[in-house]
Amino acid sequence: MPPSGRIPEATVARLPLYLQALVQASEQGTSTLSSEALAQASGVNSAKVRKDLSQLGSYGTRGVGYRVDELIGEISEVLGLTRDRPVVIVGIGNLGRALASYAGFTRRGFSLAALIDADPSKIGTEVGGRTVESLDDLASIVAERHVSIAVLATPAAAAQAVADALVDAGINAILNFAPVHVTVPGRVPVRTVDLSTELQILSFYEQLHGGRLGPTAG
Amino acid sequence: MPPSGRIPEATVARLPLYLQALVQASEQGTSTLSSEALAQASGVNSAKVRKDLSQLGSYGTRGVGYRVDELIGEISEVLGLTRDRPVVIVGIGNLGRALASYAGFTRRGFSLAALIDADPSKIGTEVGGRTVESLDDLASIVAERHVSIAVLATPAAAAQAVADALVDAGINAILNFAPVHVTVPGRVPVRTVDLSTELQILSFYEQLHGGRLGPTAG
Repeated sequence: MPPSGRIPEATVARLPLYLQALVQASEQGTSTLSSEALAQASGVNSAKVRKDLSQLGSYGTRGVGYRVDELIGEISEVLGLTRDRPVVIVGIGNLGRALASYAGFTRRGFSLAALIDADPSKIGTEVGGRTVESLDDLASIVAERHVSIAVLATPAAAAQAVADALVDAGINAILNFAPVHVTVPGRVPVRTVDLSTELQILSFYEQLHGGRLGPTAG
Repeated sequence: MPPSGRIPEATVARLPLYLQALVQASEQGTSTLSSEALAQASGVNSAKVRKDLSQLGSYGTRGVGYRVDELIGEISEVLGLTRDRPVVIVGIGNLGRALASYAGFTRRGFSLAALIDADPSKIGTEVGGRTVESLDDLASIVAERHVSIAVLATPAAAAQAVADALVDAGINAILNFAPVHVTVPGRVPVRTVDLSTELQILSFYEQLHGGRLGPTAG
């Protein structure tokens, strides 16, 4: 396997799609999968599947395909999912509640360590069987529960201040759902998911009248 | 300007970031912006900014930079945002409610045409000042309100059936928030936004200990 850092960004973005398809296949008792079947299940074309997986050093076996459980292990290791990652959600509005109750959350390498808000009327309330905690306690929550990733679901106006507080508290990565660009030190990777950005990208492909869009672009 | 179809996928994904930064600059009364300033505001490096914008035929002026309003117009046209796009949200759970009340929604080329659910206990209730309508009326809503884009926010188990109904109703594009791959005809572009996919991609970069992540990957 090449050093993880050498894997192209577009390949990294498709690995979770393969993983999802492989886990489904495994749950259905399938032990091997051809690149065509994996392509179909993940919505990626089969040449790209083969090229992506060759980046991981997995080439499959001619006439047999990929060994499902072996490939699940390899992708999980590359993505850093073999150890549990405690996650906090900061900002418990509609979006934060939706994320907190998201079913697939804990199944795939992550656990929900805390729900955090700054609003006194929300602190102490229950969301999905969990008590909302105070932003004032962020640093101790992050330290004591070994939290490495934060999901930022605050309003835009609060996002930068919360991101700063998260960095100060020792968070290693931020998934930002606030509709604003947040600035953090280069060592802390940030992924921003913004509804209007997604809609605008989709709009581009829609106006091409049936232009094809790789599912990885999502 | 080259045909839109020739613009690389990665460039298309960054255009909304530039647009957001340019609109902010315009609102602050800024009439020109250097590629460095645009890079800083959008979180992309300046060489990439120049290369991306050259794909649109925009090169800026040496010592002056890009004309903000001109570039807003060009990017808006490429993304198909110069005409209003009515959008429906299907699935009014926590996520659907969050998306429905999302502030930036209508500011950037889209309007909310309807909120739709299949659950009789939700139909007729008000969310953000709008009445939730029945999935049974999907076809007439799409036709009468000229809806082109649907946001799919149903549980995973319902997603494929709703996607089929959306395609039958004449939807041109789908933004899928359900944690499952949906299969639709090739002429209908789909973007899937999945929390665990995003977390897994972020996990990859986090474990590189400060590996840099282009914001476009979000």
